[in-house]
Amino acid sequence: MRRRMRQEPIEVPGFRFGAAACGIKPSRRPDCGLVVADDPVPVGAVFTRNRFAAAPVVLGRERVAQGRLQVLFVNSGNANACTGPRGLADARRTTRLVGARLGVPASAVAPLSTGVIGVPLPMKKLERGIQAASGDASSGGLWRFARAIRTTDAFPKVAFERVQVGGATITVAGVAKGAGMIAPDMATLLVFLFTDATLSPAQARWLARCVAGGSFNELSVDGDTSTNDSLYVLASGRSGGPLRRGSADLDRLRVASVGVGERLARLVALDGEGATKAVSIEVSGAATRAAARRVVEVVSRSLLVKTALHGADPNWGRIACAVGYSGESFEPRRVTIAIGDVVVFRRGCGVAGARAAARRRMLRDEFSIRIELGDGPGTARMITSDLSPAYVRFNSAYTT
Amino acid sequence: MRRRMRQEPIEVPGFRFGAAACGIKPSRRPDCGLVVADDPVPVGAVFTRNRFAAAPVVLGRERVAQGRLQVLFVNSGNANACTGPRGLADARRTTRLVGARLGVPASAVAPLSTGVIGVPLPMKKLERGIQAASGDASSGGLWRFARAIRTTDAFPKVAFERVQVGGATITVAGVAKGAGMIAPDMATLLVFLFTDATLSPAQARWLARCVAGGSFNELSVDGDTSTNDSLYVLASGRSGGPLRRGSADLDRLRVASVGVGERLARLVALDGEGATKAVSIEVSGAATRAAARRVVEVVSRSLLVKTALHGADPNWGRIACAVGYSGESFEPRRVTIAIGDVVVFRRGCGVAGARAAARRRMLRDEFSIRIELGDGPGTARMITSDLSPAYVRFNSAYTT
Repeated sequence: MRRRMRQEPIEVPGFRFGAAACGIKPSRRPDCGLVVADDPVPVGAVFTRNRFAAAPVVLGRERVAQGRLQVLFVNSGNANACTGPRGLADARRTTRLVGARLGVPASAVAPLSTGVIGVPLPMKKLERGIQAASGDASSGGLWRFARAIRTTDAFPKVAFERVQVGGATITVAGVAKGAGMIAPDMATLLVFLFTDATLSPAQARWLARCVAGGSFNELSVDGDTSTNDSLYVLASGRSGGPLRRGSADLDRLRVASVGVGERLARLVALDGEGATKAVSIEVSGAATRAAARRVVEVVSRSLLVKTALHGADPNWGRIACAVGYSGESFEPRRVTIAIGDVVVFRRGCGVAGARAAARRRMLRDEFSIRIELGDGPGTARMITSDLSPAYVRFNSAYTT
Repeated sequence: MRRRMRQEPIEVPGFRFGAAACGIKPSRRPDCGLVVADDPVPVGAVFTRNRFAAAPVVLGRERVAQGRLQVLFVNSGNANACTGPRGLADARRTTRLVGARLGVPASAVAPLSTGVIGVPLPMKKLERGIQAASGDASSGGLWRFARAIRTTDAFPKVAFERVQVGGATITVAGVAKGAGMIAPDMATLLVFLFTDATLSPAQARWLARCVAGGSFNELSVDGDTSTNDSLYVLASGRSGGPLRRGSADLDRLRVASVGVGERLARLVALDGEGATKAVSIEVSGAATRAAARRVVEVVSRSLLVKTALHGADPNWGRIACAVGYSGESFEPRRVTIAIGDVVVFRRGCGVAGARAAARRRMLRDEFSIRIELGDGPGTARMITSDLSPAYVRFNSAYTT
């Protein structure tokens, strides 16, 4: 789904953003993006749990562990994943080249890559991209950065909030890359939050976990992840003073950051590869939170549910069936299923006459499906997208 | 995929088969099938583990527990699932009607249903179907039975073997209903094995478990099952004497039965809803058998893998990525991936020059993908199908 977003200029004091096209993508579209802080700044990050973590993830983990970074360099079009020792050497060399160009130590640079798996990085091209993107960096370049890091994304994804913290106005700006179908599979997800709040490295790490847990893990980023998934939080400290642990100010910053993360997550669910809807699947009344999570995952991934979402078919039988094979125990007669505000299934049977109203809800771009199991206090939620013929055509013909 | 099978006449001494159209299907195609043994015969069965087990499954479990049955009555077009107490009453009434028509006690009849979920059985129509199918029963009716129990199946599925057991020639004939896409979701699977071997009820139960474990569970029937999945084994005892436990004769019968089950499983994987390939995913070298099973399930269900299968794209990156997010631990550098006999991934990297040969393997209807993890003795296998735009179109437009 192509979204027209008004691309209003967004600046985050303390950060500059650059982009360039160096020819990694055959399309010659921008494929290098760069974020540079004025100084090394506190950083937190959450990375993929995929066992085949890509070289930039391996190196990124190492660099983030230092607590501070000054530059992130992203290339799209090549994931530098499953590239063996050469891939790790290429990632290290990338950070040396970026550092040399910008006059910062390589250890203050983290690399990110997204695109085709299993092909070595074209270092000659990348070198040109590093030069150009570094030269391009400016405080107004956030949208250019967002466009450059795309692969199959139909549109760039940006969200931001301004929040009053201790008398100062703090900006939280988010950029994401990733297209639909995240939940059942592993199109790479890159997420960045930039803020001018003053955080310690520990607070930046905590904020990264909050954003991941509060939004992107509901796109299933936590379990079924690509080789390259990464979420970074950088805090320049240009606005306001330090934030005390447990303070209302820090909590406001957390809420704003999670809100930015959630909007980015919905944009990802709505984007590309034939997705036309972002549907929130909400399970309650499970025996435990883990049980709710398993039910929500099974329903979110069911091909029959996802194709019914595409056809706006209020087929509660497919939903009930997926709940039934989730492996969780519950009493079928206590289960209630609602599409939007329309109850379609109750006490083991369909609700007569609910079909037309439920279908109207399903014709919307965004709606929720609520599943109450009547078995305990466990709840979970996941954002999923519909499955369209276009997705399958696209992924049958394209080597990611 | 439409398969032209030569429909050679198959008879199993001791059984007659009937079919009829009673109008449950709007298409007016046959929608009632019946199997009647000359006397009550030993029966074994394996049923869905779905928590929303359909009424005929609930009643079938009860009837099979007796150890012997004389009649199976199947309707297609309506699953009698999620139909509450009325559904169970309708299932019981069906067996009474069948019993009355054939002069056997209702308790010697088991009902099966497959089709739309959540709609009560149209009992008036069904009554006509029972009359007609009973009148139609003959020893040569196996193919008609196979055609009548279809829902979205493009072709009837029949397989058989003849095997020498203790000097006698024993027939094992199998009939299945179910279309592609079994592994990731829950198109209903009905499977029947009929043999004229002489078995005890305990041996029939054991044989049903062997067939389920050796073939259909590799289509993931065990975990992710529809509300109605059922596998029945009936043994008329018309040929040969009793088979001793642990004897070579019984083992030959087991091998023949599992072979019939496996052929039916491949036919299901190849059938309908846009599937064009049956691909065997084979995992070895996992820490345990359970770990191998989890890896094989994740790979078999990955949408990106299944779309790559459709496009005959030897995209080992998608396979490796799915292995990587399976949650199982292994050493990425020890992993080897082969498509057919072509190794495409070894020691953490793609194999140069393997692409063209691997693609040729993938253009076939049936091939295997082998994944060696290098971590232990665990193995597992699963048959999956490709994911095509036709599948998605079909399931977006159709209420199952």
